Amino acid sequence: MGRLFIPLEASGRHVHVTKEQARALFGHELTPDRPLSQPGQYLAKERVTVKGPKGAFYNVAVLGPERKEAQVEISLTDSRTLGLEPPVRLSGKVAGSPGAELVGPKGSLRIPQGVIAAQRHIHMTPEDAARFHVTDGQTVSLKTFTSRPVVLEDVQVRVSKDFATFAHLDYDEANACGFQKGDLGRILP
Amino acid sequence: MGRLFIPLEASGRHVHVTKEQARALFGHELTPDRPLSQPGQYLAKERVTVKGPKGAFYNVAVLGPERKEAQVEISLTDSRTLGLEPPVRLSGKVAGSPGAELVGPKGSLRIPQGVIAAQRHIHMTPEDAARFHVTDGQTVSLKTFTSRPVVLEDVQVRVSKDFATFAHLDYDEANACGFQKGDLGRILP
Repeated sequence: MGRLFIPLEASGRHVHVTKEQARALFGHELTPDRPLSQPGQYLAKERVTVKGPKGAFYNVAVLGPERKEAQVEISLTDSRTLGLEPPVRLSGKVAGSPGAELVGPKGSLRIPQGVIAAQRHIHMTPEDAARFHVTDGQTVSLKTFTSRPVVLEDVQVRVSKDFATFAHLDYDEANACGFQKGDLGRILP
Repeated sequence: MGRLFIPLEASGRHVHVTKEQARALFGHELTPDRPLSQPGQYLAKERVTVKGPKGAFYNVAVLGPERKEAQVEISLTDSRTLGLEPPVRLSGKVAGSPGAELVGPKGSLRIPQGVIAAQRHIHMTPEDAARFHVTDGQTVSLKTFTSRPVVLEDVQVRVSKDFATFAHLDYDEANACGFQKGDLGRILP
């Protein structure tokens, strides 16, 4: 790839829960099913129902490990189905976002906030950040080499030694650009 | 607007039918409910169910007037729900596209082809085409002045004296750029 390109990934709707919430929903903590691209992160075997005022999604992916606060990441298309108006935010920035009801096989609970549409972002290693001349917190424009090419503006760069370099799109963005697994992007100068 | 900007519109999923199909589905031809931005086009009072192998959408908008061939325009997000793989095409280019079942209050029918994801496009008057220095069939890059700004590449320009100048996005594209009613775009040089 000549190190010029950044692999793209599409994140479907998913949920993060605390250990306590995992026990309430599933009767135990999360069980890893398969690893995700970001080191240490995994898709859990457990699935959950997410309910909003207008509708619900069933069998929604839960990602581990558990976090300090619950979070539900959906696309803006999804938000119409649920009847919620999530802000577009980076993961973890949930203050003032709407809540939802989570239903698991062993129980249900209501989170008072945590429903967001994930702001598009690039996870990046410090080595790649140096190579691309970008820094943590910077926003960049990312051209997608996809069947319906777009330039995504305001893509937030997040740099950590704990990351692998991947650009994360939600499904609205992935479908808008015709993303297929393996497609690449490039930061525009 | 100084004539530099192009108003954006988001097209939700919708169906076009022939007169014969309208009679089969509704017992009569289409009844106009309200006009659309393109002169002579209207949202019909009639609604239809669209069924695919995996799922269905209910209460789907039907646009008039009737056409010579049925067409179902959905987003790629929608296509997952239906279990179909529509090509990304301009309206009317349905050869080889998948079919679907349409269900109305008076009957149902199967269209053998016609399900597409609409290729993003700009309807333009000849006067505006001259002003923007573009011609019918040309593709352009369109920057959206929206909450999640993007540059949409490969946007097809369609010029006709029967058009009003509007850029049409599907809901994946509209949500990917955070479109709100009234937002504008601009053709990049």
